[in-house]
Amino acid sequence: MSAKEKDSRKMVEEITPMDVDFAQWYTDIVKKAELIDYSGVKGCMIIRPYGYAIWENIQKILDAEFKKLGHENVYMPLFIPESLLQKEKDHVEGFAPECAVVTIGGQNVLQERLIVRPTSETLFCDHYKNIIHSYRDLPKLYNQWCNVVRWEKTTRPFLRTSEFLWQEGHTMHETEEEAREETLRMLGCYADFYEKVLAIPVIKGRKTEKEKFAGAIETYTVEPMMHNGFALQGGTSHYFGDGFARAFDITYTDRENVRRYPHQTSWGVSTRMIGAIIMSHGDDSGLVLPPAIAPIQAVIVPVAQHKPGVLEAASKLAETLSGKYRVRLDDSDNSAGWKFAQYEMKGVPLRIEIGPRDIENGSCVIVSRITREKKTVPLDGITRAVGDALDELFAALYDRAAANLAAKTSTASTYDEFLRLSEERPGFIKAMWCGDTECEDRIKNDTGGVKSRCIPFEEEHISDRCVCCGKPAKHMVVWGRQF
Amino acid sequence: MSAKEKDSRKMVEEITPMDVDFAQWYTDIVKKAELIDYSGVKGCMIIRPYGYAIWENIQKILDAEFKKLGHENVYMPLFIPESLLQKEKDHVEGFAPECAVVTIGGQNVLQERLIVRPTSETLFCDHYKNIIHSYRDLPKLYNQWCNVVRWEKTTRPFLRTSEFLWQEGHTMHETEEEAREETLRMLGCYADFYEKVLAIPVIKGRKTEKEKFAGAIETYTVEPMMHNGFALQGGTSHYFGDGFARAFDITYTDRENVRRYPHQTSWGVSTRMIGAIIMSHGDDSGLVLPPAIAPIQAVIVPVAQHKPGVLEAASKLAETLSGKYRVRLDDSDNSAGWKFAQYEMKGVPLRIEIGPRDIENGSCVIVSRITREKKTVPLDGITRAVGDALDELFAALYDRAAANLAAKTSTASTYDEFLRLSEERPGFIKAMWCGDTECEDRIKNDTGGVKSRCIPFEEEHISDRCVCCGKPAKHMVVWGRQF
Repeated sequence: MSAKEKDSRKMVEEITPMDVDFAQWYTDIVKKAELIDYSGVKGCMIIRPYGYAIWENIQKILDAEFKKLGHENVYMPLFIPESLLQKEKDHVEGFAPECAVVTIGGQNVLQERLIVRPTSETLFCDHYKNIIHSYRDLPKLYNQWCNVVRWEKTTRPFLRTSEFLWQEGHTMHETEEEAREETLRMLGCYADFYEKVLAIPVIKGRKTEKEKFAGAIETYTVEPMMHNGFALQGGTSHYFGDGFARAFDITYTDRENVRRYPHQTSWGVSTRMIGAIIMSHGDDSGLVLPPAIAPIQAVIVPVAQHKPGVLEAASKLAETLSGKYRVRLDDSDNSAGWKFAQYEMKGVPLRIEIGPRDIENGSCVIVSRITREKKTVPLDGITRAVGDALDELFAALYDRAAANLAAKTSTASTYDEFLRLSEERPGFIKAMWCGDTECEDRIKNDTGGVKSRCIPFEEEHISDRCVCCGKPAKHMVVWGRQF
Repeated sequence: MSAKEKDSRKMVEEITPMDVDFAQWYTDIVKKAELIDYSGVKGCMIIRPYGYAIWENIQKILDAEFKKLGHENVYMPLFIPESLLQKEKDHVEGFAPECAVVTIGGQNVLQERLIVRPTSETLFCDHYKNIIHSYRDLPKLYNQWCNVVRWEKTTRPFLRTSEFLWQEGHTMHETEEEAREETLRMLGCYADFYEKVLAIPVIKGRKTEKEKFAGAIETYTVEPMMHNGFALQGGTSHYFGDGFARAFDITYTDRENVRRYPHQTSWGVSTRMIGAIIMSHGDDSGLVLPPAIAPIQAVIVPVAQHKPGVLEAASKLAETLSGKYRVRLDDSDNSAGWKFAQYEMKGVPLRIEIGPRDIENGSCVIVSRITREKKTVPLDGITRAVGDALDELFAALYDRAAANLAAKTSTASTYDEFLRLSEERPGFIKAMWCGDTECEDRIKNDTGGVKSRCIPFEEEHISDRCVCCGKPAKHMVVWGRQF
């Protein structure tokens, strides 16, 4: 890199390197890639156009997938009357501490306080009570895209905010078996999205009693690992049994004309996914976006654009590609170096450079955001070449994330080893567990924050004893520290 | 219609006829077409899958249009700190009486109360202050799709609810001229959507001082007329000047290096549009949906479906059409009569019947929801025939609505005539106005609710005098009564 180019890239050097301060690196990226701005409301963020375009791409793909699986979108009210939230005991206990409460409406003190929805099980159940009567009304496969509010003391953009955007699926089924199938189907849908769209490998598993959703019988989770070894709850799918149905008196007449309670699921992913993308793929030059959700998949940067024919060729190239890809031509008068840095910061998967010499040769240069390798390719057949380069980039992203996951996952057979690993090697620790919450509490306490992430679907047999208390082990658990 | 068919249609007869009780007719449709359900929260509705699918189609078309015009989507917080809402005097005066207020968060009384956004000018301005510095940062063309809350005493699904879904565009410009152009461009966008997508003719005009948006310099509106002559505010576009910019201290350095305040607009349409569709096109059999936003554009009803070959032919037809249209095949064991009534209730534009005789003849029967005319068409070339039938239906819907608008618009030269018309002929009245709010108040009072809808872009000269006070007239106003 020339001194001049280095100088024009100085914007990038304002990012704190990941290894120096991971939290600051993260904050720098969300701000400098123009994903968010802070708002005047504590814990609420403004999602800026570039950040929101990522969310729109995520929504579009997931929504099509949900619909393909038979789900329909609905919209439930923002407010939950306090008495409604209180109908299911475990549920209200879990959410009461995090509620934002409306007490005044139209300048009058309300007779009943309204909770700004932290999640909508109670609203869906209140509606299901009205519309489910017979087995013919089942299954009900509903989803909604909306905002929810959970009052948080410490917040971080995308990862933990008092208001966030998400989708919440809520389904009702005739049988336990069918509801359990739905719960796992939707977990699989999330896992596929992480792995095949976001290029992020995940561990699929079940939450322990301590970590499961308030009111659920089972909570399943997909757990990706962040670049620095941190854990993140990527998406959850819950099986509720008929607990809410009983609390809300939802019954249906089955095929034998018997009144029964239906079986329920819910499942959700949120804007936190954007945090997962940043921390899985980002580097010290900024964001790196998987192609399917990148607002700009390829940026065309004309080289020596003042020279005759360059802008024309760049425009023509943009036109050729824009039928198939999300392409931007940057013909502003910023320096090429500034542009390179700018689109690297924004995580644009491919940069395509085209200058006088390229035009002469009937070619252009494709640069991958992840490897920074320059590849000269003929303009003839460029559409295919861009597709191949995006596929290669996706594969490289996935491989890098998978390698990170493998490298930062350890196995502990003894508690000493567990404590040492949790201290020295940020990442996942596989270890046996007796099934008692006390051991989870002790581990969290002794390590300053390591929690059970999940009991993975693919358990290994490490030993016969709980790594913490030495009692007979029930499960292998994946343990980790979250941001 | 046979007695049997009449009987199996009885579901439809549960709708109150429009002429008997328009309000009840409206309520019957929103419930029986399964657009909404009432919720436990006063004034908040549940938008059911069929209703939400209409909204999704509206969103998709409008969003593409906004983006084509250069707008970007963002997401602002749900909450507005009370002090922020108070920054612009007229604005807070207008909205304070309608606010829902959060006073408790995370089980603590908040130091500053939070207003659930009734509209987001203040939030956008607070953000614009951070990101607008130079003329190079302008224009900012932002939009958001979200929920807002305005506390309402009397509510009606889609038309007036305490929470509703909408889009709100908020833009900032270098000059007054550019901002005024944007205001009118977006009004035109709404007018086009009503006329070319929803088949609803509108009157474009400017609101009077009394009726304009709190804080705006000008409010423009599109005003469609409902089937019974009621008026409805279909969508508004506001020019703010630099009032908010001054209140929020948003400045930019212009091309001559002078600090200036930018000029602002906002514009919005909401789920109220669905109310406009119901009341413009619906009839005593239920909803009638314009094709572009209909969740199902054509329903295929097999006739004598137990006979060999019928279901196969119906499936094949559905497959052929589904590449181009939103088609549903109803092969349930409900009677054909029930199906006819069901899809008429839901406003499905076309019904396609196919039975043994049709199959023999290589044809099927297309029935228009609006004319109920049956047209036998060859299966060969069916895709084109369905397209033509949808186009015809659109044209017929538009013509019917335009004829209604023309028939229910009158002109009043004297106040006696005005009062008589307002009593006898529900609809729009064109009449001259002096420009004084007192006359608007008197008219509203004397007629029990007739208000100025707008000063239309196309004014006519009816007389030289205000129809109310007789002073020299400034404008022709379109007056009407809203639901």
